[in-house]
Amino acid sequence: FSLNLAVDCNAVLKALQPIFQEQGMTETVHNWEDQGYLVTYIKKNGSFANLRIHPHGLVLVDLQSYNDHMKGREEVDQLLNKVEEKMQELFHGNIKRVKRLPAILRGGVIDRYWPTADGRLVEYDIDEVVYDEDSPFQNIKILHSKQFGNILILSGDVNLAESDLAYTQAIMGSGKEDYTGKEVLILGGGDGGILYEIVKLKPKMVTMVASNIDQMVIDGCKKHMRKTCGDVLDNLKGECYQVLIEDCIPVLKRYAKEGRMFDYVINDLTAVPISTSPEEDSTWEFLRLILDLSMKVLKQDGKYFTQ
Amino acid sequence: FSLNLAVDCNAVLKALQPIFQEQGMTETVHNWEDQGYLVTYIKKNGSFANLRIHPHGLVLVDLQSYNDHMKGREEVDQLLNKVEEKMQELFHGNIKRVKRLPAILRGGVIDRYWPTADGRLVEYDIDEVVYDEDSPFQNIKILHSKQFGNILILSGDVNLAESDLAYTQAIMGSGKEDYTGKEVLILGGGDGGILYEIVKLKPKMVTMVASNIDQMVIDGCKKHMRKTCGDVLDNLKGECYQVLIEDCIPVLKRYAKEGRMFDYVINDLTAVPISTSPEEDSTWEFLRLILDLSMKVLKQDGKYFTQ
Repeated sequence: FSLNLAVDCNAVLKALQPIFQEQGMTETVHNWEDQGYLVTYIKKNGSFANLRIHPHGLVLVDLQSYNDHMKGREEVDQLLNKVEEKMQELFHGNIKRVKRLPAILRGGVIDRYWPTADGRLVEYDIDEVVYDEDSPFQNIKILHSKQFGNILILSGDVNLAESDLAYTQAIMGSGKEDYTGKEVLILGGGDGGILYEIVKLKPKMVTMVASNIDQMVIDGCKKHMRKTCGDVLDNLKGECYQVLIEDCIPVLKRYAKEGRMFDYVINDLTAVPISTSPEEDSTWEFLRLILDLSMKVLKQDGKYFTQ
Repeated sequence: FSLNLAVDCNAVLKALQPIFQEQGMTETVHNWEDQGYLVTYIKKNGSFANLRIHPHGLVLVDLQSYNDHMKGREEVDQLLNKVEEKMQELFHGNIKRVKRLPAILRGGVIDRYWPTADGRLVEYDIDEVVYDEDSPFQNIKILHSKQFGNILILSGDVNLAESDLAYTQAIMGSGKEDYTGKEVLILGGGDGGILYEIVKLKPKMVTMVASNIDQMVIDGCKKHMRKTCGDVLDNLKGECYQVLIEDCIPVLKRYAKEGRMFDYVINDLTAVPISTSPEEDSTWEFLRLILDLSMKVLKQDGKYFTQ
């Protein structure tokens, strides 16, 4: 509860107290003086509440229960309803914001919380752990979401869901490129999405270079991300494609030396790529090296796509 | 921390205790017996921690601070690092999962938490409250996200962001329809996205029927969702379109009676629509009524699109 006015912490405590006490909760009051009160209410069944009353007009209630979460949730809602009613009664027009956040579930078999790369908390509707393996390089998870299908998560970082065709289409040039009869080089792309979509477009030859870091990603995806990769990862060679399990740097160097040229280079390496043969000083050096080498194997009118 | 084994709650407490105590935190231990310990650590500055040790092998740490959140966050990270080190030392191979969730910020000017319709917690990268008004029907917010542009939120329900062109394209038939010279009826669509996109395609006439519930949505969107609606909401009439601010039911009835027919009816009313003239028994009756009336104003080979 964010309030428009300063509050008398003691009066708020006295008003809310009975709601917790009639639940059979034991109260402990801590007085922070200038910063208000922290009150804990503890129930016998492993539930408890933290009530904070800050004098500048912020009242926070955290309820935690330790049991079947659906049952606990109903109890929690009832208690929060009572707190909200009482607060409305006390402050009516002066409540700036009441916000009730969904319960956070911890300790379950399925982890539904996968924060974004920029540190935001996002809960997914995960209902099944489909694949969960550690390679020497990273943890590889494939989790099923009702909404997005199977989702590939690499060391906690959400990579691609089966519903993310839009990502693959975008990195291929948003449907504006003609891949018919073309020579294409894919760097990374272990989920097989780009390879699968380009092969449909009758290219001359697609070469995908995935390092051995990706081997277990490929293993997981070819089994569990079929909407993304279809059958292209079942074999490392097809009529118009090949998959090389090699670090891309030496491959690019070899192609550059041989004068092997491509119409398209699609760099789908992870945003902060890992190398198995680091000869570079930093991430930026590595990215520059890949870009330089890519330019060397690109035809005069070739195109380079990346995220 | 989810552990693979049952734990001696007292031993865990003794091991972790010093980490909190050296922060100058005051300890209160509550023994739940069968269900383990709840320990609270309170600091003078308004910070505190809840440590729960459950004997079946679940250890939960909540840290809360009351201050400038970036400064608090660094302190929190350091403390959690120490707890994690100590837990690794105690249980090494037996830790099944360590999960650290991003901090939840409450009481700030900007609310970044907008749960989904199915109750999942989602944090957005909101950096500005652009518009925040109450109509007699609902609260209308437009919040700016770095990633999605301005986002329209109706009574807490995330409706559409400026980046959501894909939604508008999908409800228009995913680019497969030819709207040139066609008669189109839009029900709802107060954000102006569908109207803007269809008007570009040279239709004969687009009629958009938005009830007075939508008036303030239109007001907010025409100012702050320009990437979605362009200039089509600046006037209620254009060369090939008109916007009627009326409840759609009487309008549909009138058109049906007059024999006015359309090539396309696009129903973009909210999933659970509100009516200003309720004559129906339930949401399903309302939805059925709209569908029936829509069929009456649709040409033989006309198409009806909805979410």
